Amino acid sequence: MDPTELKKLLSALREGQLSVEEGVERLRTLPFEDVGVALIDHHRELRQGIPEVILGQGKTLGQILTIVTKMAEQGSNILITRLDREKGDALLARFPAGEYHPEARAFALAQKPVKVRGKGKVVVVCAGTSDLPVAREAAVTAKILGNDVEEIVDVGVAGIHRLLARAERLREAAVVIVVAGMEGALPSVVGGMVAVPVIAVPTSVGYGAAFGGVAALLGMLNSCASGVTVVNIDNGFGAAFAATRINRLGER
Amino acid sequence: MDPTELKKLLSALREGQLSVEEGVERLRTLPFEDVGVALIDHHRELRQGIPEVILGQGKTLGQILTIVTKMAEQGSNILITRLDREKGDALLARFPAGEYHPEARAFALAQKPVKVRGKGKVVVVCAGTSDLPVAREAAVTAKILGNDVEEIVDVGVAGIHRLLARAERLREAAVVIVVAGMEGALPSVVGGMVAVPVIAVPTSVGYGAAFGGVAALLGMLNSCASGVTVVNIDNGFGAAFAATRINRLGER
Amino acid sequence: MDPTELKKLLSALREGQLSVEEGVERLRTLPFEDVGVALIDHHRELRQGIPEVILGQGKTLGQILTIVTKMAEQGSNILITRLDREKGDALLARFPAGEYHPEARAFALAQKPVKVRGKGKVVVVCAGTSDLPVAREAAVTAKILGNDVEEIVDVGVAGIHRLLARAERLREAAVVIVVAGMEGALPSVVGGMVAVPVIAVPTSVGYGAAFGGVAALLGMLNSCASGVTVVNIDNGFGAAFAATRINRLGER
Amino acid sequence: MDPTELKKLLSALREGQLSVEEGVERLRTLPFEDVGVALIDHHRELRQGIPEVILGQGKTLGQILTIVTKMAEQGSNILITRLDREKGDALLARFPAGEYHPEARAFALAQKPVKVRGKGKVVVVCAGTSDLPVAREAAVTAKILGNDVEEIVDVGVAGIHRLLARAERLREAAVVIVVAGMEGALPSVVGGMVAVPVIAVPTSVGYGAAFGGVAALLGMLNSCASGVTVVNIDNGFGAAFAATRINRLGER
Amino acid sequence: MDPTELKKLLSALREGQLSVEEGVERLRTLPFEDVGVALIDHHRELRQGIPEVILGQGKTLGQILTIVTKMAEQGSNILITRLDREKGDALLARFPAGEYHPEARAFALAQKPVKVRGKGKVVVVCAGTSDLPVAREAAVTAKILGNDVEEIVDVGVAGIHRLLARAERLREAAVVIVVAGMEGALPSVVGGMVAVPVIAVPTSVGYGAAFGGVAALLGMLNSCASGVTVVNIDNGFGAAFAATRINRLGER
Amino acid sequence: MDPTELKKLLSALREGQLSVEEGVERLRTLPFEDVGVALIDHHRELRQGIPEVILGQGKTLGQILTIVTKMAEQGSNILITRLDREKGDALLARFPAGEYHPEARAFALAQKPVKVRGKGKVVVVCAGTSDLPVAREAAVTAKILGNDVEEIVDVGVAGIHRLLARAERLREAAVVIVVAGMEGALPSVVGGMVAVPVIAVPTSVGYGAAFGGVAALLGMLNSCASGVTVVNIDNGFGAAFAATRINRLGER
Amino acid sequence: MDPTELKKLLSALREGQLSVEEGVERLRTLPFEDVGVALIDHHRELRQGIPEVILGQGKTLGQILTIVTKMAEQGSNILITRLDREKGDALLARFPAGEYHPEARAFALAQKPVKVRGKGKVVVVCAGTSDLPVAREAAVTAKILGNDVEEIVDVGVAGIHRLLARAERLREAAVVIVVAGMEGALPSVVGGMVAVPVIAVPTSVGYGAAFGGVAALLGMLNSCASGVTVVNIDNGFGAAFAATRINRLGER
Amino acid sequence: MDPTELKKLLSALREGQLSVEEGVERLRTLPFEDVGVALIDHHRELRQGIPEVILGQGKTLGQILTIVTKMAEQGSNILITRLDREKGDALLARFPAGEYHPEARAFALAQKPVKVRGKGKVVVVCAGTSDLPVAREAAVTAKILGNDVEEIVDVGVAGIHRLLARAERLREAAVVIVVAGMEGALPSVVGGMVAVPVIAVPTSVGYGAAFGGVAALLGMLNSCASGVTVVNIDNGFGAAFAATRINRLGER
Repeated sequence: MDPTELKKLLSALREGQLSVEEGVERLRTLPFEDVGVALIDHHRELRQGIPEVILGQGKTLGQILTIVTKMAEQGSNILITRLDREKGDALLARFPAGEYHPEARAFALAQKPVKVRGKGKVVVVCAGTSDLPVAREAAVTAKILGNDVEEIVDVGVAGIHRLLARAERLREAAVVIVVAGMEGALPSVVGGMVAVPVIAVPTSVGYGAAFGGVAALLGMLNSCASGVTVVNIDNGFGAAFAATRINRLGER
Repeated sequence: MDPTELKKLLSALREGQLSVEEGVERLRTLPFEDVGVALIDHHRELRQGIPEVILGQGKTLGQILTIVTKMAEQGSNILITRLDREKGDALLARFPAGEYHPEARAFALAQKPVKVRGKGKVVVVCAGTSDLPVAREAAVTAKILGNDVEEIVDVGVAGIHRLLARAERLREAAVVIVVAGMEGALPSVVGGMVAVPVIAVPTSVGYGAAFGGVAALLGMLNSCASGVTVVNIDNGFGAAFAATRINRLGER
Repeated sequence: MDPTELKKLLSALREGQLSVEEGVERLRTLPFEDVGVALIDHHRELRQGIPEVILGQGKTLGQILTIVTKMAEQGSNILITRLDREKGDALLARFPAGEYHPEARAFALAQKPVKVRGKGKVVVVCAGTSDLPVAREAAVTAKILGNDVEEIVDVGVAGIHRLLARAERLREAAVVIVVAGMEGALPSVVGGMVAVPVIAVPTSVGYGAAFGGVAALLGMLNSCASGVTVVNIDNGFGAAFAATRINRLGER
Repeated sequence: MDPTELKKLLSALREGQLSVEEGVERLRTLPFEDVGVALIDHHRELRQGIPEVILGQGKTLGQILTIVTKMAEQGSNILITRLDREKGDALLARFPAGEYHPEARAFALAQKPVKVRGKGKVVVVCAGTSDLPVAREAAVTAKILGNDVEEIVDVGVAGIHRLLARAERLREAAVVIVVAGMEGALPSVVGGMVAVPVIAVPTSVGYGAAFGGVAALLGMLNSCASGVTVVNIDNGFGAAFAATRINRLGER
Repeated sequence: MDPTELKKLLSALREGQLSVEEGVERLRTLPFEDVGVALIDHHRELRQGIPEVILGQGKTLGQILTIVTKMAEQGSNILITRLDREKGDALLARFPAGEYHPEARAFALAQKPVKVRGKGKVVVVCAGTSDLPVAREAAVTAKILGNDVEEIVDVGVAGIHRLLARAERLREAAVVIVVAGMEGALPSVVGGMVAVPVIAVPTSVGYGAAFGGVAALLGMLNSCASGVTVVNIDNGFGAAFAATRINRLGER
Repeated sequence: MDPTELKKLLSALREGQLSVEEGVERLRTLPFEDVGVALIDHHRELRQGIPEVILGQGKTLGQILTIVTKMAEQGSNILITRLDREKGDALLARFPAGEYHPEARAFALAQKPVKVRGKGKVVVVCAGTSDLPVAREAAVTAKILGNDVEEIVDVGVAGIHRLLARAERLREAAVVIVVAGMEGALPSVVGGMVAVPVIAVPTSVGYGAAFGGVAALLGMLNSCASGVTVVNIDNGFGAAFAATRINRLGER
Repeated sequence: MDPTELKKLLSALREGQLSVEEGVERLRTLPFEDVGVALIDHHRELRQGIPEVILGQGKTLGQILTIVTKMAEQGSNILITRLDREKGDALLARFPAGEYHPEARAFALAQKPVKVRGKGKVVVVCAGTSDLPVAREAAVTAKILGNDVEEIVDVGVAGIHRLLARAERLREAAVVIVVAGMEGALPSVVGGMVAVPVIAVPTSVGYGAAFGGVAALLGMLNSCASGVTVVNIDNGFGAAFAATRINRLGER
Repeated sequence: MDPTELKKLLSALREGQLSVEEGVERLRTLPFEDVGVALIDHHRELRQGIPEVILGQGKTLGQILTIVTKMAEQGSNILITRLDREKGDALLARFPAGEYHPEARAFALAQKPVKVRGKGKVVVVCAGTSDLPVAREAAVTAKILGNDVEEIVDVGVAGIHRLLARAERLREAAVVIVVAGMEGALPSVVGGMVAVPVIAVPTSVGYGAAFGGVAALLGMLNSCASGVTVVNIDNGFGAAFAATRINRLGER
């Protein structure tokens, strides 16, 4: 129930078209969110240029097509993450205006132009080639969420000079997303080089005692660089979403 | 820059083909030494109102006194975290202008007035009474780092109405820090209620299968609310440091 | 040996058709459960409308067909859980009166009408679309066990208003089964909203630090809502079985 | 806001003492739980003879005394769990009408007589002597929550005849709470002997690969007896709370 | 109910002193173990020279004294394991005929002479000095259980010649108990050197990635020597008990 | 070097055909096992009726054929464990006298008749149908190692009467191997019912928090039945090998 | 070096107070740019006979071909590890001069002759046949890195004499790499037999509680042999790389 | 038996003082290591300037004094690690020539002058102040083992310039030991900066998800810098011992 509807209900009451008892009953049985006007602002805000996001993993093609078709009818921009190639192709066949990013395993459909917003650049730093899929998911997400995005790749800490050589570009970031697998040490070094928020994304890259990203995750949680925050293993989307919230906070 | 190129550059300088300023500039934009300069800005920025921070845990009183004394001589503001009562009292005896926060286990010495900065409020939300020490560490840290801080306590998800009743106050936040132990579910609910960055802090509160905060940590990393980022178990300091970076990004 | 047979044995003894030694021997060598008259009530009770249940996983189609054929001959209702589509189809071919629920991966054969019993509704609450298979297993099981079942889906805690809007329906439950993956926070919120027993089912939905359902499991075990009990990861069947025991306790 | 207050508000509106805009505003800014009439019934129900419960662990004596004093003024029955002897004695000194159960580490203050309710007995079955503290916590909790409670102790599965000898008493239970450490096998056996709900409580009893109760917890979650549900390690309180919800469901 | 009592019951029935219904009732309500004549032999066998064993850990001195006093009255030999020095001294004061083994943390009271039985020697092999307490627990247990026991100490695999030098003594064993912490490699080597049963006991000796005995436990479970079996971490008692069963199997 | 060869060497020395220096050199450079006469007995003993055993897993068909062919030429009995059907069929084609046991995934080639030895029966007890492959591996192994083997299946603890009904047969065992997945409780119950050695084999049967057999493994390591020893998850072979060592110890 | 100092240095140079060589030297010994030069030596050193190494895992064939083609143009020797057969064949088709080692899953292209260097032999000791792939990866790597390599296979600790018989060959090593799965005990024994550096490589060989190499890894980290160091599970490459650094240290 | 004794035995045989049978018997019953002449060289080598090392942890003061006294009588240099202050003082009282290093928790008694040997410097690099005890253990050990040792402290990766500023000193190392807790990232960076062997020591420094050094350990095992090897958590001694073996390999 948006405020308008609430007003109508109260007006009916005020004008005697509704008894007090009926009013109590109507309010009692209304879904809570209708009363939750506090949440409406939030939703409105979210809808300004933010696409609908669907986690593709664990859904059938049929389910995804149903959801996307319905959303597309409302003119929304749409992002589907963790979508394999086959389903991506099927979506492309149905929505030729969309784009499937095979590396990022993401499908994006921008029905409305994406307006670039925020304080500045979201820089996605990526330790190794094998971390690219997760970095790309972050980049694709950040772009469709309306950020200016830049990628810095292959700057693992074992060749620290490669990272240092990009210090200038790092300094231009409003938010830095650092994607790394194996020992996950990169965010600690980056966190010491910049003064802006750093979001670390552990990846499942590695083998043996990498334990599918656990080593990187623990490394990042224990980062000796103050102020690094962490998202789930391989969660490039989540990092980009958080970066967007941060970047928008900084806009005038 | 290899030695040959370096020689060429220096020769050009020596022969007057390059001014000193140009030389500085050239060297500055070269990979490595450039980094040196990049870090200086960063350091300068960091030093503007940001206290020196010392991790008290694992240091003897003697070591801490030595470090603090040296820092205090430079007029710095100082924050010591994870400092037990006994050491806190010893520091108070030496630095009576400081404050020891027993619940937060933090000692703060503000030799220069702390200027409130940033986009808006850092709101620290705390699930239960037992999570208070970590929430307080976050609040004390955020304050001495120059943020306007507000606390919302005892709003665990098992009584969801208590949290909903604070929706208005949550909406006023520029950044939200959510502190919770046990199942660590609070950030998921809060993340769905606000549109600003949310930093989750798992605490070691609980017993049995809480595994010293692991249950809460995993809960937060797997939050179904997009854009929640996480710090280490009991790391109220780190959350506040990250929140400060975010909050400052938002200031004009 | 049911009481009748026991009586026969004792009568034979009493009437001198059996020596004391023979009696001791007969009692000694009888399977214990025959003597275990205490257990008989239990079995009888269980057999009243409760189907035979087979865990399909880890059994070959041949083994399953053998077991089901034998049970079907006795007129039992039969439930097979964790049965993949291929085997489900094979069972349907043999038992066309049965139903295969592909989402729930369950095969149900109701040879006798299932009588609805119990105190009231078993409400199955499901956090996200990906948790549906487990929720459906719970629902299918609860139905063939004779419960009135209702499902509430897609009410994850990141959009808390969706759940609150179903408060009325939750209040009508005699028992609530809450199915959730990822951080597994839903049972904590539901547990605070109702006064009836709540059974939490963690699912293996999620990735990375979800660890195949461990994050959800730990979250549920550490629920801050008093009185939530938990079953194994993805064990929709077990939750429904427990709910049935509870629901029947409440019937007159 | 209880229904009465809501009626007053709506009446004022109806009688023109409040404008529609004021009505919207009042409803918007009211704490959500005031609107949450659904929750009020729940609370009322909970308050009928159910004591206030405080988790003693992680709270200072001062905090506990403050909370208890305030609750005691409202005439509530009070239960404090996980309270060490020293604090228990301090509470006894202040509230001589209370009882401290050292083995259960629980303090109970029954200001109003506890009315026994529910379908039948809550039977607490305990594997070994070392599991007694947790079993006692369950028993003390179940009693102050208004259940008829019976204990069966020292019936570990390694001497299965000891358990079988109590089959009769087990059959009299409306709900069974099974408390066991080490391998946690007891609930599987009990679950096969009774037809009523079984709640398993793993304890941290054991050493080495018992891992502080993890072995027992896993054993119980994987119980081959259908319908066993599990609570956190050492959580006797939670088991008793769940048992109470179940037992009350069964009362007329 | 032992066979004699069963006979009496059946005789009464046969002689008409008991009706069939009474017979059914008597059998139904008898504790199951009474019917479980199978178990009686086992108990009798166990009581031949096998002491009563009490796990001291997790019991108060009062509880232990009560149990021991009662057992002592029946003339039993008694073994208490995991008993700290203080309690050991208290027991000695009450039972001066007993022996407290501080290293093994065991108290033994042999009221009847212990008769040496079994096929041959139980040889306890111990990797390092720090593993001695567990080895001693095994040795003390094996002795009071009636085995001929020999110890071989300080033969860690890093100095393999020390072990090889004891090959002769190893060959004399009927059963070998191998006690080792850290990497737990000793049973693999010993298992390859002898043809008799080998029981491995991991100890919690070590630090860091020893994880309190987990490294040794895993090492032993994965032993490449066929036929090594394993007991819980630090469970010298259990190894000795198993060794006794094996050793007795071998006696004529 | 067997004693004969050693004698020859020493004789040559004694007879002056070898200098002392040559003798030292010969002894120094001899493989250690040649000197290791202690080991020879062991090998001889092992070779009496004990087949050569090959772990099939992780070996190519080519490697296995090479090894088996070589062993077969020496007339050995051969057992290959963890061998999939395809390789099993290939072996059968080459060695038609062998037997492939698909359930046990084992190939046995008995070129010499297997002589039954040992104190008595090795009884393999199996909790559920899904545990059968591991139980069969144990049984097949025990048989080819020369034991009299008996199987008791489907006696899970949730229907304890099924196990109790087999008490008589259990009592006839010289050694009991107990195979169980899920919570792994069966060895605790069996361990309390018999007085002979009990070897527990956890299986990877189960799902979710069964963690591939970890739950069962931990349950067995923490068994409250004294004297149960444990082998690796799914290691039916190892249990049978250990049982054979024990059973042979008992033979005259 | 801050800009002021840098300016001073450059001014001195410009004004002729400093020669170009002195300038280079001054800059070289300054922290950051110095580092640049430091690395060059290192790189140069590394490039002397050290191949370019590519981790094949997680890269597409296309990516690998691009990288290899580019490297091959520079005349480098190239090693690709963790490369499956299919990709190996594709590389062979393009670079017929290369060698694909299927067991080691490595592709080596030696465009320049590999010069054997270092103090002495790198001896790769391998516990069992199943560990061979990792051992071969180590051997192949060590060879193309310019070491003299020798392999000792199938010397698991359960047959300790097999290892002892190779003592002579072990003594000839400059560095020993020990490859073992299951309990990972071999490095402890080898570490006690030689006085040279020992690098332990745990493999994922085993099942059940081997946990994919974790048991072996823990065993090696806790080795009671002083001075054993460890690399990641299955990381034969890393061990060989470390061995090469060590071996070269020893050359004149 | 050293070669001399062996010669004597063989001479006696040759000279007819010993029959062949007696010779076989003597050789058979000799401790194996006596035959193991291969090992003697190793021992001799080890004894050249290498102190006797005792792990103090888990030993009583009495045990330590006994061992040290005995060793001291033989004039050995002695190192005791993991020795707390109290025991250290007691040793000093008895052996005033020794040194107790409280930070390293090590006691060293150099009865013979320690000769500096090896290829070059062992450089111990330490991430933070809290890692110092482990770094000191490494340094103290390396010194008494005869290395030239240098320490570089407080060069955590979050301030990468601090490390880069020491590049020159790093380049002078023959072996580098890197000690770090928390995320354990330092070895990856150092490993990329030097061409000599790098040994990584994880420390238990940190809290929460540091898991007592596990995060650092995993980080180091997964280091993206090729050729880093790892020792157990907090095992400064082991790293120094390995470094010594390496360093000596490099000496002429």
